[in-house]
Amino acid sequence: MLNQTHDPDAKSWVNDANDHAEFPVQNLPLGIFAPSGSEDRRGGVAIGDRVLCLRGAAAFLHGAAADAARLADAASLNALFADGNAAADALRQGLFALLTDEKRASDAEKVLFDATECDLSVPFVVGDYTDFYTGIEHAKNVGALFRPDNPLLPNYKYVPIGYHGRASSIRASGAEVIRPTGQTRSSEGSPPHFKPSERLDYEMEMAIWTSGANQLGRPIPIGEATGHIAGLSILNDWSARDLQAWEYQPLGPFLAKNFLSTVSPWLVTSAALDPFRTAQPVRPEGDPKPLDYLWDDADQQHGAYSVSMEVLLQTAKMRDKGMAPHRLSKGPMTAMYWTAAQLIAHHTVNGCNLRPGDLLGTGTLSGPDASSFGSLLELSNGGKSPLTLPSGETRTFLEDGDEIVMRAHAEAPGARTIGFGECRGRIASR
Amino acid sequence: MLNQTHDPDAKSWVNDANDHAEFPVQNLPLGIFAPSGSEDRRGGVAIGDRVLCLRGAAAFLHGAAADAARLADAASLNALFADGNAAADALRQGLFALLTDEKRASDAEKVLFDATECDLSVPFVVGDYTDFYTGIEHAKNVGALFRPDNPLLPNYKYVPIGYHGRASSIRASGAEVIRPTGQTRSSEGSPPHFKPSERLDYEMEMAIWTSGANQLGRPIPIGEATGHIAGLSILNDWSARDLQAWEYQPLGPFLAKNFLSTVSPWLVTSAALDPFRTAQPVRPEGDPKPLDYLWDDADQQHGAYSVSMEVLLQTAKMRDKGMAPHRLSKGPMTAMYWTAAQLIAHHTVNGCNLRPGDLLGTGTLSGPDASSFGSLLELSNGGKSPLTLPSGETRTFLEDGDEIVMRAHAEAPGARTIGFGECRGRIASR
Repeated sequence: MLNQTHDPDAKSWVNDANDHAEFPVQNLPLGIFAPSGSEDRRGGVAIGDRVLCLRGAAAFLHGAAADAARLADAASLNALFADGNAAADALRQGLFALLTDEKRASDAEKVLFDATECDLSVPFVVGDYTDFYTGIEHAKNVGALFRPDNPLLPNYKYVPIGYHGRASSIRASGAEVIRPTGQTRSSEGSPPHFKPSERLDYEMEMAIWTSGANQLGRPIPIGEATGHIAGLSILNDWSARDLQAWEYQPLGPFLAKNFLSTVSPWLVTSAALDPFRTAQPVRPEGDPKPLDYLWDDADQQHGAYSVSMEVLLQTAKMRDKGMAPHRLSKGPMTAMYWTAAQLIAHHTVNGCNLRPGDLLGTGTLSGPDASSFGSLLELSNGGKSPLTLPSGETRTFLEDGDEIVMRAHAEAPGARTIGFGECRGRIASR
Repeated sequence: MLNQTHDPDAKSWVNDANDHAEFPVQNLPLGIFAPSGSEDRRGGVAIGDRVLCLRGAAAFLHGAAADAARLADAASLNALFADGNAAADALRQGLFALLTDEKRASDAEKVLFDATECDLSVPFVVGDYTDFYTGIEHAKNVGALFRPDNPLLPNYKYVPIGYHGRASSIRASGAEVIRPTGQTRSSEGSPPHFKPSERLDYEMEMAIWTSGANQLGRPIPIGEATGHIAGLSILNDWSARDLQAWEYQPLGPFLAKNFLSTVSPWLVTSAALDPFRTAQPVRPEGDPKPLDYLWDDADQQHGAYSVSMEVLLQTAKMRDKGMAPHRLSKGPMTAMYWTAAQLIAHHTVNGCNLRPGDLLGTGTLSGPDASSFGSLLELSNGGKSPLTLPSGETRTFLEDGDEIVMRAHAEAPGARTIGFGECRGRIASR
């Protein structure tokens, strides 16, 4: 539902917000931060190059917005989203009024921090992390590498395929990526060796954070699912392809994934994303219609997001030479074969309970051609076709010192573009 | 390390403990309870048919044992095991002295509850739940059903196969089992239907609870892994076989498992299990030796547990007629192809971090013949051979009103047998 907080002409008295590529006053993403050198974490909102402390801002807000700011004065956003999105929506209204009213600037400035002085963390205590597999082009590309004769399995167009990931190893942007060690095989039929992964990869995903909860045994109908989306971040689901190929049968990926998953620390809320809701791409002729529990006309009309995502790589050599990160790909979030609401309806249809702050990964989102492939596995055709970088170096998979930067922006005609910030990680040797 | 708390002749002044099949003073399992009608959860220890409240007992303990009792005065045991097993070991020593010293009975009796007046819950806040697949006979049996030509995959004898399960839907014994609904196919090639599972099953597993933590990126060497085992409970990993068959490729089980997992609420601690440590069964001739990171001579000598497990079924009709539950199987925990220490070493070898109170399932433990098969899938040969029950009823999978009861006991020559209590669940219709 659009309201004044989406007005593309709205301006903040925080001047650098107005031309900011990520965090204008139309965005107001929520996060958890501690001032540098402190461990005293609390909620904050990004505005331009600054972070407004919600503990401090509570004094300048009123009613439901002040109550919500106090809920966000915590080491996670779980309490703010415990009962759904209403509290965060009220907070957004209050913050928008505060940050657009010049007369209130002198008060609010007292609780503004420079973003460079804020240490951001994962915005939620993640009870469970589920990774889906909604990128059908990715599923086809990877399927062709693992099962050349059978790339897309018969269940794919019926079942929103997903599996449980690891909650303990989710970290915020900037966390070091320690190259995992494990079992790999040099060739089919040979015994495994134990060594550091030689096929370390990133996966470009979006993170869907949940709000509210359902009781165990009580599915969330698809018509109510959108109300359980707190918002989105960027997710890099680091993957060790050589470990994965050897371990994944029959129960799925395990050590190939659970050594680290990195999220961008700002939660771009559902309310901020309202102007960017768009129609789910029409299924190709011949694809089956989803079963009833996955189908909702309104969701098909508005359940996708106009978000573009890009991945950049900067090697150690490029850094030394002062060369900018090189873009590896750029693609749209509409590469999802299933909507976020379909994922929630599916996840709970058997009675499984979601809790506030659960993390649902979209799975790697690749477009139909290499310019939008969301992993090196795809870009290098399973390691067979090295990429050449502007530094003259080549890459099939990630080498020590490589840094991956992911960015995303929500863009739509008539709306002020908003960004997600960065999801960054550099490979360290073991 | 055996000490006076393992003396098989030790007696408690709690008289019913001394002949108790589960909870003599040699056991002292820890749990979380609230007195009936209250929500005020705190730690307790089972002694005979009673529960000693650790909040109350702290006043009658001294030094490290009193400190530990205060750590256990919480809604979970996570704090008690935050730094490893030392606190729980001290608590055990103090509780043993308290419960065997007649002179201290009049004090301690004030904080004893009848077990029937205690509402027990899951003993830990589970950060992550990992389910392994260590039952090699189960893996062969199930593999033969899903992949007749390829029952045991090439990685099985090298990789302790595991995957991440759902933390939010773990419940304590007694939780209702609401039959899950989902997508199933009546035959290969046909489109799926949406309906309640018709192949609802149990899985007889043991739960390994972790203590202490490792930093992300820092594996736990196998020689240190045993110190990260807080203790064991029983685990029933309820499974919907029809959902599983359709959804599990390529990323593993998801909705087929995450609707509920039930644990017995008493943590039988590592210290209590010391007399029952036994040698890991020798690998059959021709099986590969595990890679070095999975191998430790001491672990091979003592890393398995002499625990017997049994599964009983009582149908609604049997309950109505006053018939006792019927034993479906009984088997040993030494059916594990990998030790608990090997699971921990493997889980962390890529840098994945464990936290206190993580739950590691052993996977279904089946012996080599039907008397010890740990699931109906195996007992009914994939649903093709119905079992006949003493009531004259037949079963391939679970029907509404069926109740599954799992029990386990640690038994060894010269040691007082100790029990795990029950892991119970009744099927409710949707």
